[in-house]
Amino acid sequence: MMNGQNFNLSAYLSDKRSILEAYLNKILLQFDQNREIVQAMRHSLMAGGKRLRPILAMASTQAVGGDFRFTLPAACAIEMIHTYSLIHDDLPAMDNDDLRRGVPTCHKAFSESTAILAGDALLTYAFKILSRPDEIKAQPNNDPVFKSIPEKSILIELISIISEAAGLDGMVEGQMMDMMGSSFVSTLPYLDKIDHLKKLHHLKTGKMIIASVQAGAVSVGIGLDSEIMQLLTRYAQKIGLAFQVTDDILNVEGDPDLMGKAVGSDQLNDKLTFPTLLGVDKSKEFATELVEEAVESLFMLPQNFQEPALPLKAIAQYILKRKK
Amino acid sequence: MMNGQNFNLSAYLSDKRSILEAYLNKILLQFDQNREIVQAMRHSLMAGGKRLRPILAMASTQAVGGDFRFTLPAACAIEMIHTYSLIHDDLPAMDNDDLRRGVPTCHKAFSESTAILAGDALLTYAFKILSRPDEIKAQPNNDPVFKSIPEKSILIELISIISEAAGLDGMVEGQMMDMMGSSFVSTLPYLDKIDHLKKLHHLKTGKMIIASVQAGAVSVGIGLDSEIMQLLTRYAQKIGLAFQVTDDILNVEGDPDLMGKAVGSDQLNDKLTFPTLLGVDKSKEFATELVEEAVESLFMLPQNFQEPALPLKAIAQYILKRKK
Repeated sequence: MMNGQNFNLSAYLSDKRSILEAYLNKILLQFDQNREIVQAMRHSLMAGGKRLRPILAMASTQAVGGDFRFTLPAACAIEMIHTYSLIHDDLPAMDNDDLRRGVPTCHKAFSESTAILAGDALLTYAFKILSRPDEIKAQPNNDPVFKSIPEKSILIELISIISEAAGLDGMVEGQMMDMMGSSFVSTLPYLDKIDHLKKLHHLKTGKMIIASVQAGAVSVGIGLDSEIMQLLTRYAQKIGLAFQVTDDILNVEGDPDLMGKAVGSDQLNDKLTFPTLLGVDKSKEFATELVEEAVESLFMLPQNFQEPALPLKAIAQYILKRKK
Repeated sequence: MMNGQNFNLSAYLSDKRSILEAYLNKILLQFDQNREIVQAMRHSLMAGGKRLRPILAMASTQAVGGDFRFTLPAACAIEMIHTYSLIHDDLPAMDNDDLRRGVPTCHKAFSESTAILAGDALLTYAFKILSRPDEIKAQPNNDPVFKSIPEKSILIELISIISEAAGLDGMVEGQMMDMMGSSFVSTLPYLDKIDHLKKLHHLKTGKMIIASVQAGAVSVGIGLDSEIMQLLTRYAQKIGLAFQVTDDILNVEGDPDLMGKAVGSDQLNDKLTFPTLLGVDKSKEFATELVEEAVESLFMLPQNFQEPALPLKAIAQYILKRKK
């Protein structure tokens, strides 16, 4: 069990990642594995990755004393939406990336049209899962995949939170801003550049990280307006930005073998990043501050949530130490 | 009012189209109109079109004696999903079309990346509308856009029906089949070609037409398992296919000025169509049979639904007469 002094984050992350991946696999196994669309979805969905968002959702449920099994439908849906966004972002018309997590991107492994459609299918299926998790049946025996299912009013709230964060006032607009490119950004005054970068990250990744933490608490009945939700939201907002700052730092001084991709690409592409704006040292300070503020938000949760919130606390601190 | 002898379909279609377009416009006006993503969504969403699916949803509600205002959230969501599918289908990696309804396609008017994201945003926003229609607020006074809102268990059912029909076992798979192209199809025996074509249309357009008719009845509380729903579903299945058969016929002998696009493109592209498989005359016979079967399904509805179902009946018969 959890214990403040020797909480084992690495075991926790690996345990939750295995559970999530087992569920994603069960969902995919419902379909004929010979179909190209299913193979393309599997290629990108099961290509590894940190599974940060779904693990945050599960850890958030546990922080409020809930049973994370109720969070699995939302966790799977969120990871599908995250994967769809990576597939579309990698397309030739967007970032034009050939590799992701050390394997060919979806449009390289299949075709551009299949990649667009695999992204569309993952996004659409996320809402199928969230509307009728009871209809997701494991093969070959037709057992329900999800055994603990939130009530309908909670499912509606989850769909609303997630579609809001993923859509044109969230992730989609973040990618639009990212596509504007360096020529527009280079015209901005210095402080506006920092604001632009913060806003871009808030929209492109921050909102879905916030939605993940909120979904974890909503899945077990915590109200969106509650004080607990406000603290969790602040925690998520801070770690979301911290994650992006450390991402930028890793692109400067990370180990390409550990990361499964080349480093230094931001500089090559003349990309606006925290290290180019603030320098590496100030960027590290900024990330440390953000993580401290995230941990402080958890500390303000009621006393009985302090121990259950240890995974969230450890995840925040891990962001500063991560190598990939 | 409706009257069996002189029901005015053209007035009905134009009335329902105006209502739908007013609602779509109100939804778009929530957002800053200077944003490129909003302009791209508006470009494609407000480019006209028959609005067949949302009108079918409203007519289906009326057929079961319901108030179509409860169907407006689903009608708007369905039209957004239809528009997203057109934007993605038109992309260079898919059908590579420059014109749609006489105006430049989304990626021509904006850019390929913006078109991909505008499609993603429309698909995502459809589920936002269906999860919290009460949160869609008209500008500038913050009045609710939708004044008649189905209860949460109905909203969940709508999201499930629509995400199923739009996803990898529906519209997305239909587009995958369409992308296989003529080289694969040309290897099939004659009867398999007909089956292939029927399956392609069932997945690519049929399932969303069925979902539209079902959504209309579900929006006012008709159960998915009811006999009424089975008759409406059979109606929708028949007219969905009839619509595709007449589409193929119009591509052979339609008037390009009325249709806002070139004709004869199917033959040029060596595309599998009903006229190439059956000839134009047999294709017309087939379309007539399908419409008769659709009308027969309506005739089997309870006596008190016969007059309310006149719009559905007239829409079925219109499919045979349409010029665009």
